[in-house]
Amino acid sequence: MAGFTSREVRLKSRPVGMPQAGDFEVGSVELASPGEGQVLVRNRWMSVDPYMRGRMYDRPSYVPPFQVGKPLEGGAVGEVVASGSPDFKPGDLVMSMLGWREGFVAPANTLEKLPADAGVPVEAFLGILGMPGLTAYAGLLEIGQPKEGDTVFVSGGAGAVGSIVAQIAKIKGCTVVATAGSDEKCAWLKSVGVDHAINYKKGNLLEAVRAAAPKGIDVYFDNVGGEHLEVALELAKPFARFAECGMIAQYNNEEPAPGPRNLIYVVGKSLKIQGFIVTQFAGLRPQFIKDMSGWIAGGKLKWEQTVETGVDNAAGAFLKLFSGGNTGKMLVKL
Amino acid sequence: MAGFTSREVRLKSRPVGMPQAGDFEVGSVELASPGEGQVLVRNRWMSVDPYMRGRMYDRPSYVPPFQVGKPLEGGAVGEVVASGSPDFKPGDLVMSMLGWREGFVAPANTLEKLPADAGVPVEAFLGILGMPGLTAYAGLLEIGQPKEGDTVFVSGGAGAVGSIVAQIAKIKGCTVVATAGSDEKCAWLKSVGVDHAINYKKGNLLEAVRAAAPKGIDVYFDNVGGEHLEVALELAKPFARFAECGMIAQYNNEEPAPGPRNLIYVVGKSLKIQGFIVTQFAGLRPQFIKDMSGWIAGGKLKWEQTVETGVDNAAGAFLKLFSGGNTGKMLVKL
Repeated sequence: MAGFTSREVRLKSRPVGMPQAGDFEVGSVELASPGEGQVLVRNRWMSVDPYMRGRMYDRPSYVPPFQVGKPLEGGAVGEVVASGSPDFKPGDLVMSMLGWREGFVAPANTLEKLPADAGVPVEAFLGILGMPGLTAYAGLLEIGQPKEGDTVFVSGGAGAVGSIVAQIAKIKGCTVVATAGSDEKCAWLKSVGVDHAINYKKGNLLEAVRAAAPKGIDVYFDNVGGEHLEVALELAKPFARFAECGMIAQYNNEEPAPGPRNLIYVVGKSLKIQGFIVTQFAGLRPQFIKDMSGWIAGGKLKWEQTVETGVDNAAGAFLKLFSGGNTGKMLVKL
Repeated sequence: MAGFTSREVRLKSRPVGMPQAGDFEVGSVELASPGEGQVLVRNRWMSVDPYMRGRMYDRPSYVPPFQVGKPLEGGAVGEVVASGSPDFKPGDLVMSMLGWREGFVAPANTLEKLPADAGVPVEAFLGILGMPGLTAYAGLLEIGQPKEGDTVFVSGGAGAVGSIVAQIAKIKGCTVVATAGSDEKCAWLKSVGVDHAINYKKGNLLEAVRAAAPKGIDVYFDNVGGEHLEVALELAKPFARFAECGMIAQYNNEEPAPGPRNLIYVVGKSLKIQGFIVTQFAGLRPQFIKDMSGWIAGGKLKWEQTVETGVDNAAGAFLKLFSGGNTGKMLVKL
């Protein structure tokens, strides 16, 4: 079977500070038929994630930097169009890290086949049952170690990860305090059972969180850093656990931002602050899928997604992550 | 048996910024004979420790604040003068938390009897075999989790805690990089086997530590905070462990100091930063005494102490902690 023309989003220039639309461009490539052991895939959905900002800097990190003039990469769900491998046939749904493009040819062993009858829309494998879901599940449970009755504070509570953290914490019997950047997002958080949803753009964050957690917090799940982290240090109980998932408040800083002014509490309160990358918890995936599927089937886990359409709108979807333009998982439908 | 007059060091005023001699005063009290269940003790040695600075602020913490006009408290070794308890007899050596005074009457159950024949000078129970020793042992081994071949970085390396951390790390087969504030202290560190001793007052700290640990650091034992912590974050390997014991660089700040500008590495490098107070590791004491005694007997652990004499010089000894006036444990002989 023949290939097709695939349009893709490329990094045109490395962003300085807040990324701009002009830092990206759309180009096209001709895809050939798959050779032996290869598979031709047409993407249906692609994932848009904050961590990608880090890959736009030219520096060593846990994932290699994007290259100027080359397409971006990211999680994607697609459908097999043609296969040179006995492991895949046309129509199979596959997960790859070759998003930000309409299609691709790749070795079969770089693809993961998705179940046709998972009981959830296929794009859930980019969100609640995918990387953001596992990030929330593993970070909260393995690092946060929440116990029944604990108070869990989560920043970015309406985001792809934070919204799952908040709900798993409720399932585990915790009191949950979550922040988000609009009243609408806070209303959604309340609707899924969050005890205290705080619009961090209004009023004094420290006082709002203190009022919601008068006895202090046992677990902080950090997606934001900055002032949120300082507030969490201030209100942490002795032996509190901080799961450091991200610091989106800093991703676009042109100069390194100073850390919290009260970091010394780490000593006096015997705090544990632990960063993590979801890949270290890959071994938890079977248990994760089992637990999450059960909670979804039982109506205990809800999710939102914000969907843009087409590669021409993909860069814009990414920019919206930094202005709060998404509730839940940000996706591009292709 | 009659009591005696005890001179004691009192907090005259709460220090603002760097403590001054005028923040302390010496007074006296008449000690009565011990009643039933009480013991009269004459102190021989008292401990002088950086953490006491925190108790001079009027704020909630893991230990209650000192009160203006009242004597300071701290670890002390003394000799029983008279006893109203069957558990103690005159001549017994006892450990208490009633230092900063020449003597006291206290309930017998607040005292710990020390062995008469421990094979070390009795003041070692305030240092290498006491609270600083257990702090070093537990913080390094339980939180730092050093493995053979690891690179361990310790700040305040010539202090009571840091000097023990450095040597235990060597015993465990690690490469040790330690900082201290003078060439003399660095020479002592080299003499006890530290691989790289850095005078942090000379040259660029980041570049000096990078040169000593070109592959990065696996464990950071923090006594200092500030620039040292920022350097440790910069040079940490993925999954490095930070044992946060103290941040002496900040104890006298009049305004809260901003944290390190590179705290975001906690996420990308999956670091674990954990603070602790030695009391949480009280259960390790038997193993600690066993291990340490063996290492001392085997010539693997050395220690230094800096001794001042008499309650009139006790406040001055405390002030010297912040100007680097001690090598190893700071003690006052009474």
